[in-house]
Amino acid sequence: MPNVRLALAQTNPTVGAIQANVAEILNQVSLAQQGGADIVVFGEMAVTGYPIEDLASRESFILEAELAVKALAAEILNLGYGDLAVVLGHPAMATSQEQTGWAIAKNCASVIRQGQIIGTYTKHHLPNYSVFDEYRNFVPGNNLLTFEHKGLRFSTVICEDIWQQGGPVAKLADAKTDVALILNGSPFEIDKDDRRFALVRDLVKRQNCAAAYVNLVGGQDDLVFDGDSIVLDSKGRLVARAKQFKSDLVFIDVAAKDELTVLGDHHLSKPNDNWQAWNALVLGLRDYIQKNGFKSAVLGLSGGIDSAVCATIAADAIGAENVFGVSMPSRYSSLGSKDDAEDLASRRGINYRVQAIEDLVTPFESALELTGLPAENLQARVRGVILMALSNKEGHLTLTTGNKSELAVGYSTIYGDTVGGYAPLKDVEKSLVWELAKWRNAYALSKDEVEPIPVSSIEKPPSAELRPDQVDQDSLPPYDVLDAILDSYINQRKSRAEIVSFGFDKAMVEKVLTLVDRAEWKRRQGAIGPKITGMAFGRDRRLPITNNYKG
Amino acid sequence: MPNVRLALAQTNPTVGAIQANVAEILNQVSLAQQGGADIVVFGEMAVTGYPIEDLASRESFILEAELAVKALAAEILNLGYGDLAVVLGHPAMATSQEQTGWAIAKNCASVIRQGQIIGTYTKHHLPNYSVFDEYRNFVPGNNLLTFEHKGLRFSTVICEDIWQQGGPVAKLADAKTDVALILNGSPFEIDKDDRRFALVRDLVKRQNCAAAYVNLVGGQDDLVFDGDSIVLDSKGRLVARAKQFKSDLVFIDVAAKDELTVLGDHHLSKPNDNWQAWNALVLGLRDYIQKNGFKSAVLGLSGGIDSAVCATIAADAIGAENVFGVSMPSRYSSLGSKDDAEDLASRRGINYRVQAIEDLVTPFESALELTGLPAENLQARVRGVILMALSNKEGHLTLTTGNKSELAVGYSTIYGDTVGGYAPLKDVEKSLVWELAKWRNAYALSKDEVEPIPVSSIEKPPSAELRPDQVDQDSLPPYDVLDAILDSYINQRKSRAEIVSFGFDKAMVEKVLTLVDRAEWKRRQGAIGPKITGMAFGRDRRLPITNNYKG
Repeated sequence: MPNVRLALAQTNPTVGAIQANVAEILNQVSLAQQGGADIVVFGEMAVTGYPIEDLASRESFILEAELAVKALAAEILNLGYGDLAVVLGHPAMATSQEQTGWAIAKNCASVIRQGQIIGTYTKHHLPNYSVFDEYRNFVPGNNLLTFEHKGLRFSTVICEDIWQQGGPVAKLADAKTDVALILNGSPFEIDKDDRRFALVRDLVKRQNCAAAYVNLVGGQDDLVFDGDSIVLDSKGRLVARAKQFKSDLVFIDVAAKDELTVLGDHHLSKPNDNWQAWNALVLGLRDYIQKNGFKSAVLGLSGGIDSAVCATIAADAIGAENVFGVSMPSRYSSLGSKDDAEDLASRRGINYRVQAIEDLVTPFESALELTGLPAENLQARVRGVILMALSNKEGHLTLTTGNKSELAVGYSTIYGDTVGGYAPLKDVEKSLVWELAKWRNAYALSKDEVEPIPVSSIEKPPSAELRPDQVDQDSLPPYDVLDAILDSYINQRKSRAEIVSFGFDKAMVEKVLTLVDRAEWKRRQGAIGPKITGMAFGRDRRLPITNNYKG
Repeated sequence: MPNVRLALAQTNPTVGAIQANVAEILNQVSLAQQGGADIVVFGEMAVTGYPIEDLASRESFILEAELAVKALAAEILNLGYGDLAVVLGHPAMATSQEQTGWAIAKNCASVIRQGQIIGTYTKHHLPNYSVFDEYRNFVPGNNLLTFEHKGLRFSTVICEDIWQQGGPVAKLADAKTDVALILNGSPFEIDKDDRRFALVRDLVKRQNCAAAYVNLVGGQDDLVFDGDSIVLDSKGRLVARAKQFKSDLVFIDVAAKDELTVLGDHHLSKPNDNWQAWNALVLGLRDYIQKNGFKSAVLGLSGGIDSAVCATIAADAIGAENVFGVSMPSRYSSLGSKDDAEDLASRRGINYRVQAIEDLVTPFESALELTGLPAENLQARVRGVILMALSNKEGHLTLTTGNKSELAVGYSTIYGDTVGGYAPLKDVEKSLVWELAKWRNAYALSKDEVEPIPVSSIEKPPSAELRPDQVDQDSLPPYDVLDAILDSYINQRKSRAEIVSFGFDKAMVEKVLTLVDRAEWKRRQGAIGPKITGMAFGRDRRLPITNNYKG
């Protein structure tokens, strides 16, 4: 009876950093070898990072990735690991017959053994919805790759191949596959984990094979790959689950497709949704900062909930000593707000300074005779100028603290509170901001740590404090109602008439939907931020700015 | 022998404005009927405007478009025009079997006669490259639609169907087509017209039929549809050419597929590339302003070439009386710059005011202790605050004047000179900005008008004037060299090594390419602007911000 030791290597590549990614792959190959593995499997495009977007149309890039795989094969043999089978994802050039003019490359999984690439699989189903543009960038393959290793049969498929019907994945049973190796670049969404498990379970039962689902981990622009790789046997039983939001290397002994054993301590369950959402936001920010060469972040601290949550995410991501908070009070800022901002910073030890804006705002007001909304926007823009000046002077990444509900209705000043390279709460609706704040405080208490977020920031009515006694609900419906309308319109793509039929006030629906449509130009100029839901602003939702549809 | 009068209706729809678009279609149908037409053909998606992007995934929108086509059919019959065949583009729901989960609609052409939709064609080739995402938004069809009318046989295809091999277009001859009706939403690119003509000529010769190529006209966000519809007979002879950059209705009498006659005065040739590029920029801006409900535009006038050209485009688009120029001199602005700004405004009668920035900049410099680059950026940002305040106060659209070369290398201050909703020169490299300025002045002279652009703005060395005696070439190579390197990297997608092999200095190539890559985050937050080349920034070039590839 065979006993094949399978290793799942969940790495965090950086897009474009081929040499660094391959060095980490080699590191994991060595660890796998030292752990007695017979075969080690990496994620989709582990060589280049994922998604590579239009880098796929640069021939020099694809060729460099192919050369890196060949060099890696030689190096593994050179290290004396030739018996180890290494399965990893990378792009490769399509033949001139396969190329479509725009798409010149393929999304591949190669198997390395004895210094040779013994086979290469090409992804068949190319996702071209949501945030994905693979039909733009790749040409599809149509054949399953199956190989024998140490007495078992393995077949490779890639990510979307298991989310669609038909194609190579339907041939796993016919190919007498013992273990399907599924290479993935599957971004985190709240609740998505359960869908992955259900998909793989259906697959193993239908095709009568075990499956190793290996995901990437790490932040890449607006996507967060959460790892959470899983192994199921042919009966659909969950055998192993890798860490979520961290690199990992998991070993499983396979005696037969229905006889798998995980090595070492292991948890099959996973933490709750709030823990997952929080860690996704932290990892997304950390990797954006580190992979883009920043060391620190600056943000405005208003005393409100959004900036408090952003600052806490930043402190969790890169350490409070690298987070620079700036309180920028105006004549309309309450004493409580200033206290809350200072309190927030002191709880975690975030760097803190105060820069009042009165003397900076007044000259503009006089010169341009500004009152009303233009004067409100002016205050936000002066704050933006301050943050960007500090960013330029001190080298910080600027964080913009707006949440998804505000972005939806354009409740923000463009070039004001929207300035920054990264928006941690871009895909977090206001209701969830509150929930995460409470969760994070409770989490701190459970660890005997100080609650990072002042309770008054959580409990007071939200306000932009751009005029006397202003609160958000002067202009907007209560956030629970707003978020429910936004869910219907944005996530469910319902019409005005349908949303009204759900029981919402007609005038309010009209107002909210009009605000959403009119804010499209602002969103188009907004910072990127981590996608954590099934429908994020940005690449996920592509609407014209010029759009007179009112339905 | 038949004699069928064919009308080509080149309309300018607004995306989403179904009722207004249909009203204009009905207006053109009446004009066609009054002109004795037997058949009238509209462009791709004339009912909804194009491209509708993710509106395609809103069922209520697709259903409304379908209902509008049915109502239009009834109304045409009601008007007594039942004998007229009307061919027009619109989206329609795919069947549940055809839907892919994300894509629920089809891109269609329907034929209306006697109040009925007598047939509907579905686009087969869905472009999913460059600015197009049709594979995301539509499901493809696979059958040619052929119908007889007044003794001739007509077949419909849509746009991309003639740009690719195979599919329904290959069956035109077998279907004994006399005239192929090609409905298009084909955006302007410099020189693209010749490619369209060549494609249609190859088609008519290969399939032995005449062809009416009907394009949309008008600006839609970053695209400019230029009209320029054409008719060729089966021998490949150009019979008619509709206006470029204007709505038009052209009549052709068809006796046989090789015997066509255009009615009325007619030009088969077209103006030069500079005329076309200029008119594309003017139409793009005009339609962005009008379709988004603006009446006026504001922009900073520095005395330099970019703002001079932008202001002139704006004056040509919406009238000088609706253009508001603001000179915002600093301590570093030369007297010549201020004079040139005023001269520019007075030549066309553009509204002009001066707002010195010294008193607005100094308080920030003192409060934040800014010198060097942060202080330079500060000046640009203070100007941005002024322009946005005026926009907020007076209701103008803000124009940002940066050109494509600057956007490429990030030679701009984000939230400073980049503020604005629309960037007229976004796809115009600096070399072309100069060329267009000279062309526009010469064009004015040829019409006995005052040259709109001061000669000194064209001739002086470009400078951001953010520090004493600064010129662009302190930081950048000469623009002709820069534009050549950018063409190799961005348009031709060459690697560093390849570009150096073309004869450019290695250190300069390294510097320019590094600047381009580092500016991706700024471009991602930039205003939209009209695409006039084969590779514009924005949807046309999708690269990760986090990208460590250095090849």
